[in-house]
Amino acid sequence: MTIRIFVTGGTFDKEYNELDGRLYFQDSHVHEMLKLGRSKVPVEIRTLMMVDSLEMTEGDRRIIVENCLRCPEDRIVITHGTDTMEDTARVLGEAITWKTVVLTGAMVPYKFGSSDGLFNLGSALAFVQTLPAGVYVAMNGRYFRWDVVHKNRKTGEFEEAGS
Amino acid sequence: MTIRIFVTGGTFDKEYNELDGRLYFQDSHVHEMLKLGRSKVPVEIRTLMMVDSLEMTEGDRRIIVENCLRCPEDRIVITHGTDTMEDTARVLGEAITWKTVVLTGAMVPYKFGSSDGLFNLGSALAFVQTLPAGVYVAMNGRYFRWDVVHKNRKTGEFEEAGS
Amino acid sequence: MTIRIFVTGGTFDKEYNELDGRLYFQDSHVHEMLKLGRSKVPVEIRTLMMVDSLEMTEGDRRIIVENCLRCPEDRIVITHGTDTMEDTARVLGEAITWKTVVLTGAMVPYKFGSSDGLFNLGSALAFVQTLPAGVYVAMNGRYFRWDVVHKNRKTGEFEEAGS
Amino acid sequence: MTIRIFVTGGTFDKEYNELDGRLYFQDSHVHEMLKLGRSKVPVEIRTLMMVDSLEMTEGDRRIIVENCLRCPEDRIVITHGTDTMEDTARVLGEAITWKTVVLTGAMVPYKFGSSDGLFNLGSALAFVQTLPAGVYVAMNGRYFRWDVVHKNRKTGEFEEAGS
Repeated sequence: MTIRIFVTGGTFDKEYNELDGRLYFQDSHVHEMLKLGRSKVPVEIRTLMMVDSLEMTEGDRRIIVENCLRCPEDRIVITHGTDTMEDTARVLGEAITWKTVVLTGAMVPYKFGSSDGLFNLGSALAFVQTLPAGVYVAMNGRYFRWDVVHKNRKTGEFEEAGS
Repeated sequence: MTIRIFVTGGTFDKEYNELDGRLYFQDSHVHEMLKLGRSKVPVEIRTLMMVDSLEMTEGDRRIIVENCLRCPEDRIVITHGTDTMEDTARVLGEAITWKTVVLTGAMVPYKFGSSDGLFNLGSALAFVQTLPAGVYVAMNGRYFRWDVVHKNRKTGEFEEAGS
Repeated sequence: MTIRIFVTGGTFDKEYNELDGRLYFQDSHVHEMLKLGRSKVPVEIRTLMMVDSLEMTEGDRRIIVENCLRCPEDRIVITHGTDTMEDTARVLGEAITWKTVVLTGAMVPYKFGSSDGLFNLGSALAFVQTLPAGVYVAMNGRYFRWDVVHKNRKTGEFEEAGS
Repeated sequence: MTIRIFVTGGTFDKEYNELDGRLYFQDSHVHEMLKLGRSKVPVEIRTLMMVDSLEMTEGDRRIIVENCLRCPEDRIVITHGTDTMEDTARVLGEAITWKTVVLTGAMVPYKFGSSDGLFNLGSALAFVQTLPAGVYVAMNGRYFRWDVVHKNRKTGEFEEAGS
């Protein structure tokens, strides 16, 4: 069973540009993180885009949906910025019901010492192997269905809407 | 749903003693790792022992089994050295069939830069929330049932026995 | 011989705000870095300001000069943003000739994995103990007199002006 | 002015073997550390041996002395285990008076998160550029002449003998 991983950017993959002091995207760190985790899960990784999720457009989301629909794999992890993760989850959730899709990301860039990225990637890979078909967000060690997930902007934590 | 975490030692929690250059156990890093992962999974953590798994005795394994049987939680993660993880899994698997128990560990101590510990803890916490009752090992991003898991000593990777 | 350390901010001390994805200043990391380096050099640390050096004003520079003049120590390290380090060095160099003052900083925040901060702090502390009176910049493992130092904005490296 | 760096092993360069859980030597990390420090100091690096300093023989020390005598550079940094650093310093100090030689090392391997190695290398490179001819140990942010340096085994810190 091969897992498909789609990279879309987000905090996960931000780096520090030491010449101008800004955060930017270079390459995805997903390969490096899987290596660090000694992962032996068969994966196919493809970078769809490298954007801050606040700047993700509906066109970008269509590209993500189409790639999920078209790829041969039934189990898909998507790395994504946390700010609009619930929006992309909703678009995916309304379009895909027979594959297991798990979105994950990070509050702190992987390259910074205190990142939650490796923990989240480990949990997303596990959830995608075990959850039934549907679209989910994996953050804070938990999983949330696409139709209830909500990011609390004050705490930075994900929770069930209305909870 | 509260997850029980039992700490037993293993590479996971080894530290470097700068006075004598040896590796030793001090406290468990599980709290710190869950904090780094921004985990919001309700957990109860208890340290049962702090031993290198090569030195784990049958008495130690009985203590682990008894604690799994006795605790109120139905979902349990055990941090454990990788060298005899399959032995403890077997003892647990033969004794417990109505709870989900996931053993995990690390090839490199958490305190060393290149540790797989955070990735493994993320995946173990996810597996324990989603797998049916039974005893499993979560390593290398994968999960293995207790009656087939085997550590390949040449590669350091876990695989299905006979595979 | 006590070394005075004045903290003024700069990349050195920037942190990542996980709620808004911006870099900001919280506390100085100098104490933590000296502890990590197992430093036994007697030091007195005082935070004068916490600013990005691009936003440092002439008023800020006067505060730095006055503190250098007024403090009882003859050997002073100043942590400072790299963008205008040469400007502050010039103001100090014109005002102070009988104390050894070494400015240092970092290209990447200390809290990010790939920071040069610990290396630079180690070299600055060494230079301040051994260089004769005068004002210097310690970066890239080297030291530069205040009247020749220049940051090359293309490479991010410090060099002698005109070299 | 080119600095010569001789690598002899020591805690500095120890790595964790994830297959047997032991610490061992692979390659020196000095190149990587200088890159991390954005060092622009011209250096020539040569590995003379890779040994735990407790196992360093008089023959090893003769090799170190001969290399220091023979190399064209007048300023030399030696990375060395801390346990017998003072012994090697003494042998060097009695043989070499017209070059500046600085020994340094680390209490914790560079590859482990909490290492003092980068700080020490930064300070050693600075001391070797500024101290007069003689043999020194650079540890704990300080420098010590070869004929007074002493490692306090209880604290792990270097101090002046008799102090």
